[in-house]
Amino acid sequence: MSAPAEVAAPDIQAYMASVTAAAHAAARAMARSGTAERNAALEAIARALDSRRGELAEANERDLEAGRTTGLDAATLDRLTLTDDRIDAMIAGLRQVAALPDPVGAIEHLQPRPSGIRVGRMRVPLGVIGIIFESRPNVTADAAALCLKAGNACILRGGSEAHHSNRAIGACVAAGLAEAALPGEAAQVVATTDRAAVGELLAAEGQVDLIIPRGGRSLIERVARDSRIPVLKHLDGICHVYIDGAADEERARAIAVNAKTHRLGVCNAMETLLIDRAVADAMLPKIASAIAEHGIELRGCPASQAIVGGMLPATEADWDTEYLGPVLAVRVVDGIDAALEHIAAHGSHHTDAIVTEDWSRAQRFLREVDSASVMVNASTRFADGFEYGLGAEIGISTDKLHARGPVGLEGLTTQKYIVLGEGQIRA
Amino acid sequence: MSAPAEVAAPDIQAYMASVTAAAHAAARAMARSGTAERNAALEAIARALDSRRGELAEANERDLEAGRTTGLDAATLDRLTLTDDRIDAMIAGLRQVAALPDPVGAIEHLQPRPSGIRVGRMRVPLGVIGIIFESRPNVTADAAALCLKAGNACILRGGSEAHHSNRAIGACVAAGLAEAALPGEAAQVVATTDRAAVGELLAAEGQVDLIIPRGGRSLIERVARDSRIPVLKHLDGICHVYIDGAADEERARAIAVNAKTHRLGVCNAMETLLIDRAVADAMLPKIASAIAEHGIELRGCPASQAIVGGMLPATEADWDTEYLGPVLAVRVVDGIDAALEHIAAHGSHHTDAIVTEDWSRAQRFLREVDSASVMVNASTRFADGFEYGLGAEIGISTDKLHARGPVGLEGLTTQKYIVLGEGQIRA
Repeated sequence: MSAPAEVAAPDIQAYMASVTAAAHAAARAMARSGTAERNAALEAIARALDSRRGELAEANERDLEAGRTTGLDAATLDRLTLTDDRIDAMIAGLRQVAALPDPVGAIEHLQPRPSGIRVGRMRVPLGVIGIIFESRPNVTADAAALCLKAGNACILRGGSEAHHSNRAIGACVAAGLAEAALPGEAAQVVATTDRAAVGELLAAEGQVDLIIPRGGRSLIERVARDSRIPVLKHLDGICHVYIDGAADEERARAIAVNAKTHRLGVCNAMETLLIDRAVADAMLPKIASAIAEHGIELRGCPASQAIVGGMLPATEADWDTEYLGPVLAVRVVDGIDAALEHIAAHGSHHTDAIVTEDWSRAQRFLREVDSASVMVNASTRFADGFEYGLGAEIGISTDKLHARGPVGLEGLTTQKYIVLGEGQIRA
Repeated sequence: MSAPAEVAAPDIQAYMASVTAAAHAAARAMARSGTAERNAALEAIARALDSRRGELAEANERDLEAGRTTGLDAATLDRLTLTDDRIDAMIAGLRQVAALPDPVGAIEHLQPRPSGIRVGRMRVPLGVIGIIFESRPNVTADAAALCLKAGNACILRGGSEAHHSNRAIGACVAAGLAEAALPGEAAQVVATTDRAAVGELLAAEGQVDLIIPRGGRSLIERVARDSRIPVLKHLDGICHVYIDGAADEERARAIAVNAKTHRLGVCNAMETLLIDRAVADAMLPKIASAIAEHGIELRGCPASQAIVGGMLPATEADWDTEYLGPVLAVRVVDGIDAALEHIAAHGSHHTDAIVTEDWSRAQRFLREVDSASVMVNASTRFADGFEYGLGAEIGISTDKLHARGPVGLEGLTTQKYIVLGEGQIRA
């Protein structure tokens, strides 16, 4: 099966209506399917990717050729490139997802009620999920695997620069579905680079149940603004580590260094270090120099600057910045109340950690910090679907509703009430 | 404490900005509060309502007077009226909610991970909830009770015809909060009837976390269309009962009669009866006449009409209509596949029931019907927060995300990940 023909501009509306309607119909078939069928499809997709490496390379070369012509930068061209290793990684990812437990069908809290009915909640697929992403073509396979495993249909719309690669991968996905006797329309790669297609997708209320944008802030904000359908958003990760007056110094240093320097360009890296005035004189010099040794620029409040020489001054804007790079803001605060106040005012509700040996302050931090992940004595870098044991991750949600924090298969499902009776009627 | 002064049109934007900011700040205090404080506030609100019956009656009379002048119909005037019985019901409602278990703070699935961290999920308040409702002033107390119990702040915007009543109830709520040393701004009644206030509320992203419209379809659709904030929607209840070929006749008749006639104007009443052709000749005449005896008009497909004399013909539009009244659509279908097809094409994903003694068809129905409540051998009228054991109900959600079906206290909360460590860093 090869990719369908390109769709031209005037037909976008009709084309997208047919894509969403087909996805909606395929979602019913997916919801009926069993675990074994869905796993067989993932395995068949993995085999199709393996056996069509030539086609994938050819499609990828077309994208790379076009990218070089239009002058894409080296980093984008690198993200675009489908090496054999990256194809291997997609194949391994499909098999990992196939090996995960099936979230669908689990029934919770089935309880008898005084009326005699039994009421519980059954976990079921969401339906149709639209994925809008940027230049990495592997997302086509990775996102499809998670959506299909959870019993959903999906519509995949990648970056135009990876269009031929995405469609070649999409053809493998459709082939794998067909081999497992599931509808190929359960995972459709949008066959046009026209931007109007995204607008049609975001307006398909009643046909599409959830939109997941994967990419930079501007993509996510644009999608959230335009969508008539719920959007799972991943906005800023302005993560804090607060070193409390009762912190263990060795733990404080290790966690602060790890949270900032383990990886720089990631959402769960620390961006602001807060330290209790009570221990700032004693602990901050060593911690600051341990972080600076990794080539991190420190920007401090006046009190931090007075303790650590050579720090640049932090401006008000620094407290609200996700650097995603080798910069750290540092602030001395008057104990836990001031730390909680700072995090409430400047945090992004992503991930925040306290380092303390004090039981009550640890409990307050856990209760009062309104973030997707709140940690005691651990590095913010643990905020990750694999580290949390989800087995896979479609993204991280900074929203409060439906799914919060790292999102695995469960976030791609919902629950419905089931009522089991033996003829009961309402009195 | 009396209600604040009315806000005039030019100041709406600044006024609503101050309301949402105050609610956001109050939400932090609510999240910090303990179960005992919140229960004390609910009890104090109950006492304030009881001791201020005179003020409530006076405010209510102003609304009724204005309503009679502007010519409100008798049904609306009735809904508007705060009788002593209705004040008693509000007071009893507050005490019932106070007696419910506190959903906040529960920790689920705390599991050790290979890294040594322990990861779990803690249930926490949502934050600020905006409630937009129509003419019943008791919603002010009922909705505030649920929001406050779950640790949230709320902003209440009722119908303009009940404005003085709502504000008088709101003053009791604020007084009760103050008595329990919680911020009065944790439950604010919007002090203007200007429609622009709703627009400002729906645009308060980052300050307001969830909007719950309570009222007719047009209100809900308008709110959903205009909101920048997630909306908990309760749209149509086109509920089906499917009488399968393996149904017990007595159960089928009892359930069908109860689902249609127990109460007419409610969202969980049956609107369409589906019956398997295999048993239509044998069962439909008695079931139809049992329903018709309650003064219900039957509209049937040609096959139903051929079996039951005197039925009006159903048109295609009947399958898509929520009558909320003494009308029932009846259709003979070819077994469970046709029933599932009809429900997928015409249902509203609210509540659907099968009557059958066949195990496998019962299982298929439970799995395959994509509705908030799916029932076997029970009346659709059971789709209700109290019948399900939620203890209270802020509404019924026909959405798939966050909360689905009857929504109690849990639907007014969310979860965050907590990570408990002892100095772990990521390798």
